[in-house]
Amino acid sequence: MKYMNTMLSALLLSALALPVAAQAADKAKMVIQVSQNDAAVWNLALNNAKNIQKDVGKDNVSLEIVAYGPGINMLTAESEVGNRINEAIDSGVQVMACQNTMRNQKLKPEDMNPKVGYVASGVVEILQRQQQGYAYLRP
Amino acid sequence: MKYMNTMLSALLLSALALPVAAQAADKAKMVIQVSQNDAAVWNLALNNAKNIQKDVGKDNVSLEIVAYGPGINMLTAESEVGNRINEAIDSGVQVMACQNTMRNQKLKPEDMNPKVGYVASGVVEILQRQQQGYAYLRP
Amino acid sequence: MKYMNTMLSALLLSALALPVAAQAADKAKMVIQVSQNDAAVWNLALNNAKNIQKDVGKDNVSLEIVAYGPGINMLTAESEVGNRINEAIDSGVQVMACQNTMRNQKLKPEDMNPKVGYVASGVVEILQRQQQGYAYLRP
Repeated sequence: MKYMNTMLSALLLSALALPVAAQAADKAKMVIQVSQNDAAVWNLALNNAKNIQKDVGKDNVSLEIVAYGPGINMLTAESEVGNRINEAIDSGVQVMACQNTMRNQKLKPEDMNPKVGYVASGVVEILQRQQQGYAYLRP
Repeated sequence: MKYMNTMLSALLLSALALPVAAQAADKAKMVIQVSQNDAAVWNLALNNAKNIQKDVGKDNVSLEIVAYGPGINMLTAESEVGNRINEAIDSGVQVMACQNTMRNQKLKPEDMNPKVGYVASGVVEILQRQQQGYAYLRP
Repeated sequence: MKYMNTMLSALLLSALALPVAAQAADKAKMVIQVSQNDAAVWNLALNNAKNIQKDVGKDNVSLEIVAYGPGINMLTAESEVGNRINEAIDSGVQVMACQNTMRNQKLKPEDMNPKVGYVASGVVEILQRQQQGYAYLRP
């Protein structure tokens, strides 16, 4: 009986502890939407990412910038914020271009900043990231 | 004793499995805010909804467009995107007009697209949907 | 055996009940982002906060307006929406200015509306609030 009680206690503790442990393991996560063809917004998005990394420590946060629709031009090879995007990627920010938008705008991978990543659909990525616990930001 | 261990194992497994099962049962959900009097934004919102349905399958996602404040004109009978809204509703997107805004702008149900739904407050709807697990999008 | 079954049932029930109870205890929470230097947006943010309080009851909701980047001017002493901000604060809305932005724009506390609060980083506040269960709104 004592043995069973011990087992029950252990089970109860582990059941209760589980969500807390899972939560503690989570690091801060945010998906940043860029859907405007406006360099001021692109710079805001990059400033916001940089400030978050500075304030919470870049190893303590997962940041992902998703550019789609009219925002896709942020990530072309000719984008005026190309250098800043490269810096963001080098410091650990994921920067993703929407392939749906690229197809609609006849943009090919060779037209894009060579360092960016790709997602099939920017808006689905933004949906799924939130459902994975990412906070959302539209600068 | 063996019986109890079996029961304990089953209990432990079901406790652990529960969140996973609950998660698997959830389908993707997103609330899309339209609060600007700008047909370009209205078209983006409709494009986004259509792309999500195409990419994840329209039976796998609950989408709701909420128009309020300056965005309410998207849903009037005379809206230039009326046909697209009807198509969205026919394909399963919920499209909701804010009754607070309608009152402020002296819009009556007969001024609105006859297919749209209503919520007492657009902004409360957007709050509650997120607290029900909906992702958020402001196109 | 009966005793153990009772214990097991109680354990199972408490494990299942826990998340539901936690959820019921949560009141509605929303963080409202103001990042534009545009009085129309400031008024929308204040209208939205007021409507939510009216519709769900101001004791049933925690609202926080966070102004950062180009939105910081909403909260200066000379802001044209100063009176409305004071009313919002008096009715329980938290209104927070971003100290990162203030440093960048050489704004000192004496330049600000004396009733507003401060956060080290507006964008980190918006991230953390969402991870604490706040819904997000960008008016």
